[in-house]
Amino acid sequence: MTVTSAADASLRHRYAEAFLTVRRGDGAPLADTEVTVAQTRHAFSFGNIGFDLVAHANGETEADPDSPFGGAPPASGEHLAALWLDLFNTATLPFYWAGFEPRRGTPDTTRLLRAARWFAERGVTVKGHPLAWHTLAPDWLLDVPTDEVETLLRERIRREVSDFAGVVDVWDAINEVVIMPVFSNEERRNAITRLCWERGRIPTVRLAFEEARAANPSATLLLNDFNLSPAFECLVEGVLEAGIRVDAIGLQSHMHQGYWGEERTLETLDRFARFGLPLHLTESTLLSGDLMPADVVDLNDHQVESWPTTPEGEERQAQEIVRHYRTLVSHPAVEAVTYWGLTDEGSWLGAPVGLVRADGSTKPSFDALHGLLKDEWWLAPTTLRTDAEGRVSVRGFRGEYAVSASGARAAFTLDRDGDVEVTLPAS
Amino acid sequence: MTVTSAADASLRHRYAEAFLTVRRGDGAPLADTEVTVAQTRHAFSFGNIGFDLVAHANGETEADPDSPFGGAPPASGEHLAALWLDLFNTATLPFYWAGFEPRRGTPDTTRLLRAARWFAERGVTVKGHPLAWHTLAPDWLLDVPTDEVETLLRERIRREVSDFAGVVDVWDAINEVVIMPVFSNEERRNAITRLCWERGRIPTVRLAFEEARAANPSATLLLNDFNLSPAFECLVEGVLEAGIRVDAIGLQSHMHQGYWGEERTLETLDRFARFGLPLHLTESTLLSGDLMPADVVDLNDHQVESWPTTPEGEERQAQEIVRHYRTLVSHPAVEAVTYWGLTDEGSWLGAPVGLVRADGSTKPSFDALHGLLKDEWWLAPTTLRTDAEGRVSVRGFRGEYAVSASGARAAFTLDRDGDVEVTLPAS
Repeated sequence: MTVTSAADASLRHRYAEAFLTVRRGDGAPLADTEVTVAQTRHAFSFGNIGFDLVAHANGETEADPDSPFGGAPPASGEHLAALWLDLFNTATLPFYWAGFEPRRGTPDTTRLLRAARWFAERGVTVKGHPLAWHTLAPDWLLDVPTDEVETLLRERIRREVSDFAGVVDVWDAINEVVIMPVFSNEERRNAITRLCWERGRIPTVRLAFEEARAANPSATLLLNDFNLSPAFECLVEGVLEAGIRVDAIGLQSHMHQGYWGEERTLETLDRFARFGLPLHLTESTLLSGDLMPADVVDLNDHQVESWPTTPEGEERQAQEIVRHYRTLVSHPAVEAVTYWGLTDEGSWLGAPVGLVRADGSTKPSFDALHGLLKDEWWLAPTTLRTDAEGRVSVRGFRGEYAVSASGARAAFTLDRDGDVEVTLPAS
Repeated sequence: MTVTSAADASLRHRYAEAFLTVRRGDGAPLADTEVTVAQTRHAFSFGNIGFDLVAHANGETEADPDSPFGGAPPASGEHLAALWLDLFNTATLPFYWAGFEPRRGTPDTTRLLRAARWFAERGVTVKGHPLAWHTLAPDWLLDVPTDEVETLLRERIRREVSDFAGVVDVWDAINEVVIMPVFSNEERRNAITRLCWERGRIPTVRLAFEEARAANPSATLLLNDFNLSPAFECLVEGVLEAGIRVDAIGLQSHMHQGYWGEERTLETLDRFARFGLPLHLTESTLLSGDLMPADVVDLNDHQVESWPTTPEGEERQAQEIVRHYRTLVSHPAVEAVTYWGLTDEGSWLGAPVGLVRADGSTKPSFDALHGLLKDEWWLAPTTLRTDAEGRVSVRGFRGEYAVSASGARAAFTLDRDGDVEVTLPAS
């Protein structure tokens, strides 16, 4: 007997089919017995920011938002935590230098470590964002000479990656390098822009990867950018030609100005898949309200007093999020998608990007995404009967599974076609 | 006594001042004598395309235009040649592969060599454009397998650079690499785009420079692009980090959509000067008619039936060309400016880019540019009296000069402040 989830051909690479042999504690096949097979986790990384839950994970009842890019008040934490964990398996936590170390020598390590562990204990992969970035560089760096800026940046990267190793093993090593040396949307040139202007992009990328790699050799390190034009391709090529090992290419995809559609999305993925590296869609958003005007270049420049979610916008968002996730998951190079925001409460720019309204109710997009991730692409508990050799055939989205029979339970991984064996613990 | 040209402080780096000691044929100082000093050439490269003059240089009376980017009929040649030589010291000649070798194995070497020599014999530096480019790749390459495309491209580069060495020693080694692998403005992907997509940008740049360098080690080789955004910065960084020796960065500046103004121009120059390489403004144009709409991305997409030069447009063009050249020459990194078109006759896209109208009369821009290059920035024949040691003081735009007295004449170079000696031939 075979169990299959509904799947169109474009997602074939996401599925695996295995002959699962179930053994009893004594090693004998569990023949002709009813067993229940259920998926427990996706291999594919379906992420969201965990900014809203830092205070909650720390048991705080009062807190400032953890970053300008998302931060609901602690009182919403418990409700949001349940929704978050229902849908996602990867959390991005904020390591913006200015917020993480507002005064030199006072990093927010303990608090962030508690938040990271909170997620990890719940089976969530934790990613840190970002180790090096010009935006939100600390003000106390402004007057530091460039050589010392380099030293401090190296030390900060080494410190964070070391302190969080084992809990946070995925990092945006450096963010938005395409514009880093020429970034000019501020009154004074920040110290990281100055460093990158004087040293060059590739040496700056090299130092970030070098320090992070040294501090945690098994970490997954990303080069992340919002610029998805040939500029970023040129940067990636230069970085790789310079011999810098990049583990994944991070592609932001904030769609405050409108959904890209399948064609543009696939064209973009193809251009970056060419480098043979995994692609992570690190920052995806779709609005459930008015779109940002197309002529805004730096999204931060668009400040409106009120930016409501609307019924029509919510329907559109729900349809677009399904199209977007189908497209991304259909492309074999994509390994991760992180949606940028769970709730509209405290969202970046106040935009209605969330899957949850500011009042805590879920939008259609939440339900639509849930339908994909936890229904269409998910194997719910399914009862099967083993054959005389104790075998059942299981086909499902690649990931973690469990099989149980008579109160005993064993986990297995479905990561390729083939044979899998599990032994149920003696009950 | 000192001779000075009028110069504002921003051009100080363009001038040199020398004590010139003039000696007679027997070596004695030519003391207390009237001599005439005159500039004969600029060190700065003031260029234009020479496409219009290929037929003329070959004595042809009938000819197809030499490229889609400029080609007046041979009948206009003599008139245009005089205007051309009056103003410019550097000619760009067309080596578009599709036009240069329309059938495999039949390169237009003899004809182009005659044109190149025609310019060289008139004291003009000749530049070849371009050795590798996706646009105007020959149709006969379309179905050639990629490995063979690479071989053929290497052979073609080596052939042209070898055949023209000593006459053409400046080359756009490769053109528009930022979009090369993703260029899609055509029905079938051309072979050079395919090569660049499969090999990568930097390996493609490397092969072009490698072959050109091997064929003519003393050539000046440019990496040329129209994309002046951070994309090209990223490419340049990657190419330099990969150890490819680039002699100059080529920045196109077709301004069919309007003059950039000083601020944008200087900001662009600063961004590319950061690499410490000379900058060549390889393709500058300013219209004397309607501007192209700002929403046109690929200039080739703008096709109009008639695009006339207008009196107001001509006044604007004259003012802008002076502002543009002043800005470029004021920046110490800039070594060359090539205007893209002498005449409106047969101009690229039919646009009124020329300094000469289609009827052969000069526009105000011609006179304005002449005023800069051959008056304000030029030392006309000037009579000076040597002192008791045979010396005069000469200050002028860096370049080639001649001194003459009593029918004898000697050349000297003014390339830095200091002492210069010349000996007049015995008359």
